[in-house]
Amino acid sequence: MRVILIAGSTETARIPGISAAGADPEVMALTPSADAELLSYGTPIRTGTVPVSPTGCPTPAVVTRAVRDLVGFDAAVLDAGLAVPTGAPTIDIGATPGEDIREATAVETPEAIATTAAEIVAALPDTEIVLAETIPGGTTTAMAVLAALGERPAVSSSLPRNPLETKRTVVEQALANSDIERGSCQESPLKAIGAVGDPVQAATLGAIEGAVKADKQVRLAGGTQQLANAALARHAGIETPIAVATTPYVREDDSAAVGALAADLNVELRVTDPGFDTQEHVAFERFVAGEAKEGVGMGGALALAEEADVPMTRVREQVLTRYDQYFERET
Amino acid sequence: MRVILIAGSTETARIPGISAAGADPEVMALTPSADAELLSYGTPIRTGTVPVSPTGCPTPAVVTRAVRDLVGFDAAVLDAGLAVPTGAPTIDIGATPGEDIREATAVETPEAIATTAAEIVAALPDTEIVLAETIPGGTTTAMAVLAALGERPAVSSSLPRNPLETKRTVVEQALANSDIERGSCQESPLKAIGAVGDPVQAATLGAIEGAVKADKQVRLAGGTQQLANAALARHAGIETPIAVATTPYVREDDSAAVGALAADLNVELRVTDPGFDTQEHVAFERFVAGEAKEGVGMGGALALAEEADVPMTRVREQVLTRYDQYFERET
Repeated sequence: MRVILIAGSTETARIPGISAAGADPEVMALTPSADAELLSYGTPIRTGTVPVSPTGCPTPAVVTRAVRDLVGFDAAVLDAGLAVPTGAPTIDIGATPGEDIREATAVETPEAIATTAAEIVAALPDTEIVLAETIPGGTTTAMAVLAALGERPAVSSSLPRNPLETKRTVVEQALANSDIERGSCQESPLKAIGAVGDPVQAATLGAIEGAVKADKQVRLAGGTQQLANAALARHAGIETPIAVATTPYVREDDSAAVGALAADLNVELRVTDPGFDTQEHVAFERFVAGEAKEGVGMGGALALAEEADVPMTRVREQVLTRYDQYFERET
Repeated sequence: MRVILIAGSTETARIPGISAAGADPEVMALTPSADAELLSYGTPIRTGTVPVSPTGCPTPAVVTRAVRDLVGFDAAVLDAGLAVPTGAPTIDIGATPGEDIREATAVETPEAIATTAAEIVAALPDTEIVLAETIPGGTTTAMAVLAALGERPAVSSSLPRNPLETKRTVVEQALANSDIERGSCQESPLKAIGAVGDPVQAATLGAIEGAVKADKQVRLAGGTQQLANAALARHAGIETPIAVATTPYVREDDSAAVGALAADLNVELRVTDPGFDTQEHVAFERFVAGEAKEGVGMGGALALAEEADVPMTRVREQVLTRYDQYFERET
C-alpha cells in the first residue's frame, strides 16, 4: 500500500476569495510544496512553512502526517505542477502549474500528464494505491470540470462559508472563455481538464487509469475534488468500483451535496471521524468549525488508521504532538 | 537515519573504456535513474532496466535494495543531474548533467548545487545521514578533482582491470583544458569541481557541509569516489571525523591505494564483507572478480545490515531473491 500525494498549483487559486489553503496568496503558492514536505519528513525542510488558513486552521497535512507517524505507510509525491521548490522527493511527470481557468486554456498538456502518471502508477510494485491531492483553488477547478462533464457541480470549500457565488461566476467565465457548454465534454474528460481544469486532475485521472489497468486497488482520499476526479474517471470509461475516503466535515457540508454527487457517480463514500469535536483544542476547533475540511489525503489517512486499529484518541494525541512541534505552543 | 542517494550523470562517462556502469553508453545514461528506482521501489518502474555491466555484473543497487528490504531504512534521492527521467521521487536541487571534463567547464554551478544540498540536508529531521552516489564515470572525475586538490589521485574502477592509462590521459587533458595545475585548487574545492569534477561531487560536498553544520552524524557510503568527496570536504575546511563505509572489493583493489588515500585524508575506512566469495552464484561471481566494486551505497548498506545484526547469509539470500526477480533466472 502506498499513498501518492498528487501536488500542484494553478493561477486560479489567486482569484480573491477562492481558497483558504494559506494565509494569503503568496503563502498559498507554498502550500502544496510544504504539504509534500510534511508528508515526506514531518518537517517543512525547504519551504519553512506549515500552512495555516487566514483564521489559523492548520493544513490537513498535519493530520495525514500524524497518521503516518503511527501507521508508517509508504508515501510518494507526484509533482503535478508545483510552483515553488520543495525539499520533498517528487516524481517528475512533466507537469507545470495550471493557468487561471478563465483563460482559454487551463492545462497545456493534460494528455501527456495523464499518460505519464498512468505509466508510473501502473508500474509501481504496490497492489493498493491511495491517491491524495494538494492544490489550492482545487474545489473551483473541480466545479468547472463537473460542469463541463454535465455532472452536478456540487463542491465543498476550504472556507467555513463556501464562496459558491464567486466560484460560480469564475466557472461561468471559464466555460465561456474556453467555448465550452455545460455537459459538452461528457465524452472527453481530458478536454474538460485542458479547458477548465487543473494539472492535479490530469495526473489523478491518469493515476486511476494506470491503477485500474494494472489491477491495483485504488482509493481516492479527499473531498469534492476527488469526487470530481471520480467523475473524470467515469467519463473516461472506467466502470470498476471507486471509493472516496473523506472526513465528516465534507459530508456535513450542506452546500456541497456530496452524497448526491457520489450517488450520481456510483462512488462509495467512506467517512472516518477523527472525533475532533470531542476534545477542545485550538488544533481541532477550526476543523470542527468546518474549515479546511479535507486535503492531503486526510480522510484516507484516517481510514488507514482505523483499518490499522489505531484508536482516534491516539491519532488526536499525535496530531497535537505535531501541532505543538510546528507552532511551539505550550501544551 | 536516512540514506541519501545522490544521483547524476556526466558526458565524461561517454568516453570509451571509462566505466562499466551499464552494458553500453546508451544504457549507461539510464543507470543512475534506474538505480534510484531500485532503491526507492525495488523495481525499475520507469527506466525498465536493471543495469548490468558488459560482462553481466548487476548494479550494486541490487545489494543496497536487498539490505533495505531487510533493514527498512529511510531513503531519499537527490537529483544531481540525471540525464534520463526516473520514476523515483527525487529532490530537485537545480543540477543538470555534467559536461565532459575535457571541456573548459565541467559543472556550471557547483556553488549553487552545494548550497542547496547543504540547506536541504541540514534541515532534514534525521540525526544520522548516510550519503551514497550513482554516477557513471565517477572514478574518473574523482581522479581529476584529487589531482586538482593536490591529493594522491588514487582511484578504483567499476571494471575488473582499472583503465588507469585512459583515465590519466583524460585527467591530464581535463586539467590542461581548464588551465588547472595539479594542486592549484587546494584551497578552492568548488573551483576544482567546476573545472574537472561532476555535479554529484558538488551535491555531496554540500550535503557533508550541511550535515556537519546541523550536528548530524554523516557517513559516506562508497569507494574512491567518496574518498574524493572526503578530500573535497577536507579542503573546504571540514575537520570533523569522516567515515567511509565500503566493500572489500575497493580495499583489495591494488590499483587504487585506497588505504593510503584514506590515511592522507584522516578518514576512517570501514569495510563490510558480504561473503560473496563463500557462495557460488552468478549474481556474486562478477563482484568477487572485482567488477562494479561499489556504488549506490553498497558498502554503507552492508554496514547498516551488520549494525542491525542481520547475518550476511540473510543478505545474500535476499540479493538472490531480488536477482531472480530481475533476471527471471531459475533458482
